[in-house]
Amino acid sequence: MVMILYGDKALNVYRAIQPLFEAQVDVEEELKLVTVSLKAGQFRLPSYKAKQPFGLIPFLEDGDFTVFESRAIARYLAEKYEGQNTPLLGKTLKERATINQWAESEAQNFHPAIAPMVRELFLAPFEKRPVNEEVMETGMNKLDKVLDVYEVHLAKGTKYMAGDNFSMADLFHTVYMNWMKSRWPQLLEKRPHLSAWIHDITTRPAFLRCLQLDWENASPIE
Amino acid sequence: MVMILYGDKALNVYRAIQPLFEAQVDVEEELKLVTVSLKAGQFRLPSYKAKQPFGLIPFLEDGDFTVFESRAIARYLAEKYEGQNTPLLGKTLKERATINQWAESEAQNFHPAIAPMVRELFLAPFEKRPVNEEVMETGMNKLDKVLDVYEVHLAKGTKYMAGDNFSMADLFHTVYMNWMKSRWPQLLEKRPHLSAWIHDITTRPAFLRCLQLDWENASPIE
Ligand SMILES: N[C@@H](CCC(=O)N[C@@H](CS)C(=O)NCC(=O)O)C(=O)O
Ligand SMILES: N[C@@H](CCC(=O)N[C@@H](CS)C(=O)NCC(=O)O)C(=O)O
Repeated sequence: MVMILYGDKALNVYRAIQPLFEAQVDVEEELKLVTVSLKAGQFRLPSYKAKQPFGLIPFLEDGDFTVFESRAIARYLAEKYEGQNTPLLGKTLKERATINQWAESEAQNFHPAIAPMVRELFLAPFEKRPVNEEVMETGMNKLDKVLDVYEVHLAKGTKYMAGDNFSMADLFHTVYMNWMKSRWPQLLEKRPHLSAWIHDITTRPAFLRCLQLDWENASPIE
Repeated sequence: MVMILYGDKALNVYRAIQPLFEAQVDVEEELKLVTVSLKAGQFRLPSYKAKQPFGLIPFLEDGDFTVFESRAIARYLAEKYEGQNTPLLGKTLKERATINQWAESEAQNFHPAIAPMVRELFLAPFEKRPVNEEVMETGMNKLDKVLDVYEVHLAKGTKYMAGDNFSMADLFHTVYMNWMKSRWPQLLEKRPHLSAWIHDITTRPAFLRCLQLDWENASPIE
């Protein structure tokens, strides 16, 4: 049964789908893409809101089963293909707890710091107005603090956030860390351990394949 | 081995610990409380930041194993006492995905809407300044939209967010829904299904026991 991913070129969409590539699923065979154009505001279509009540992408259909929220989709796919996977979700109670701790840190500390800045830098030109510097300053102060904690944590010697194996904790961070790396390389310069980790997670083949999904030639939502 | 919970009377602390009461663990025997006074700013103590690098409560020690982030602690405790529990995390792949979907909705939709308002209403009198009405208006607009989606979802006939059983998806929402219910009862009035659900989850004995934890007589952090 082919799964259907509703999305577009967007950070949260890459996060949702990476576990499929980690598990080396034949994505061309097993996944159909349906484009919900962000530019055209198609997330507001009633046909789409009937599926995803918040009108946000990504959204996954697996037969008659459906899931939204990128992190929930990622967990579903990681577990569905668990046997084929690097164990993204951990094997023991304690491994899972440490993975969840850093996964939550992404959702509660890193994402709330960086996401308003990403949004502001995207919206300002779109709305033909200057960037709101207060949003940027507040965000940057928060982000700096989070990155300082990450640097100290990674300096303790583990290769990944939750130990020596790549896990969901790293995967959740990847898309926005990748964006940050190209926009503000100076944030990495004074943080060598953070920098090495970001380089590692953002050059994983499974992540690079997410960026290559061909949304332009996918079927559009009706 | 007695576990140690670092915390204070605070919403995130209640969220972390509820699974222990759901599992009917003898909390007086198995859990020691250590108070990190919010009022006294003890979360800034170097001795505490050495444990929890972001300087936030709650924080859990279980022997030499540690976890922070309230939602990660809750998942750890739910899984540790799984046999004794209502199955908070779901039994099948699909149950777990639906639970995670609504748990993520709490973290990504509900919490970001309500938390800045809770914070503002707490900080303004503390900082002896008027409440910032812009924060309140933005928050209330977001919150209204989220609650509308929840009302439609619950009107489909399930008793809880992820089906007919109480799960982590409900538990994550409980503390802030409880706060909302007493502060803005009018938000419930026009939403009968949401209202019934909030009444149910906020009167669970396991939740009420979280509120009764005796932080005043607990050992203070050193
Ligand atoms: N918490 C959601 C967020 C999804 C989200 O914000 N998606 C954006 C695109 S990256 C969207 O659909 N935006 C439409 C809008 O702005 O309403 C997730 O992680 O899946
Ligand atoms: N995402 C964290 C948030 C924890 C949090 O914000 N805790 C508050 C008390 S409820 C705190 O420690 N505040 C100290 C401060 O303001 O720095 C969690 O869910 O555990």
